Amino acid sequence: MKIQRVARDLVSTEQVTGLGFMSLQVVEDDRGNVEVATDPVGTKPGDFVFTISTSAARYAAGDATVTTDLTIGGIIDHWTEERWRS
Amino acid sequence: MKIQRVARDLVSTEQVTGLGFMSLQVVEDDRGNVEVATDPVGTKPGDFVFTISTSAARYAAGDATVTTDLTIGGIIDHWTEERWRS
Amino acid sequence: MKIQRVARDLVSTEQVTGLGFMSLQVVEDDRGNVEVATDPVGTKPGDFVFTISTSAARYAAGDATVTTDLTIGGIIDHWTEERWRS
Amino acid sequence: MKIQRVARDLVSTEQVTGLGFMSLQVVEDDRGNVEVATDPVGTKPGDFVFTISTSAARYAAGDATVTTDLTIGGIIDHWTEERWRS
Amino acid sequence: MKIQRVARDLVSTEQVTGLGFMSLQVVEDDRGNVEVATDPVGTKPGDFVFTISTSAARYAAGDATVTTDLTIGGIIDHWTEERWRS
Repeated sequence: MKIQRVARDLVSTEQVTGLGFMSLQVVEDDRGNVEVATDPVGTKPGDFVFTISTSAARYAAGDATVTTDLTIGGIIDHWTEERWRS
Repeated sequence: MKIQRVARDLVSTEQVTGLGFMSLQVVEDDRGNVEVATDPVGTKPGDFVFTISTSAARYAAGDATVTTDLTIGGIIDHWTEERWRS
Repeated sequence: MKIQRVARDLVSTEQVTGLGFMSLQVVEDDRGNVEVATDPVGTKPGDFVFTISTSAARYAAGDATVTTDLTIGGIIDHWTEERWRS
Repeated sequence: MKIQRVARDLVSTEQVTGLGFMSLQVVEDDRGNVEVATDPVGTKPGDFVFTISTSAARYAAGDATVTTDLTIGGIIDHWTEERWRS
Repeated sequence: MKIQRVARDLVSTEQVTGLGFMSLQVVEDDRGNVEVATDPVGTKPGDFVFTISTSAARYAAGDATVTTDLTIGGIIDHWTEERWRS
């Protein structure tokens, strides 16, 4: 699982039905690369999170039929930008 | 899920049967790397989209028997090239 | 799916049984990195192809029990080396 | 499977239910990149481990419903930092 | 599938039960990056092999319950270090 930071939510009016009404968040890594993750946790911008990929992302979304490849798994306690690289 | 831009459609006369008659799009990232995605949404060149990979790509294509590893999940509202990197 | 070029076939006398008698091709990307793909299409060296990875590779091979993680999905019409990067 | 070193445990009070009460470890590679892995083995900081990704990570966690994409598979005997790159 | 070279076997006394008694090999690519693969073929150090990843790795191990994400698929005939990059 990757450690990423929530940047902002993503709005997509025209999308496949498989994502239901799940919240989508733009998440970024320590190099500024961005990805999009489904968010069953309810995060806000700035939260450090760990994200789950591949088939586990579907299960973590709460329903294995959700067509996601990246899901926020949880908010990390006590993480700071300095700890991003050990 | 990755944020990519639709570049052009891809024509392949000789292909495996598992892709059916799905539209194929060449998508590119912010570094100009290209990939090929199935398109159940109906995008056009220049659209910024998010794409779904791994097993979820098959489900997102509308039919889990479609043999794709990358499917366009939706068109992103209000995205510009400047927002590609945070 | 990735865009790759067929370089040559690969010979492996001693292999797992799960690949059956499928043709194996060495494919390369635009940086010269090589991978190995199962080939249900019947390609020849120099063909530009798109390749399918992860679980869809098994289904694309024509039989989901084929133990491959990369399968040639089709030959791309009208592709040239110049179009490899947009 | 990747060779990584256990850095420290990760605390996440607010997380998806799919991870149960599994221990989470921050693991790092030889370049200092960090990831998060579920730990059914019981490792401690400094241990060199190999980690299992994709769908096998769920099975390795002892229960395929665990929503992880990276699981510690074992502690490596006789590994040192010098052997990390051959 | 990737082309890698067998470097040495890996010993792990304390490991998850899902790997059974499968032989584990350290494999390296042309840049010296190392990974760990299950070996149902019976390779020896120096062999050039192709390796199978994701869910196909489990099937290639001979038993889909083996919790591996990388399995040696076969020994490549007539491969030399010079052919590693085309």
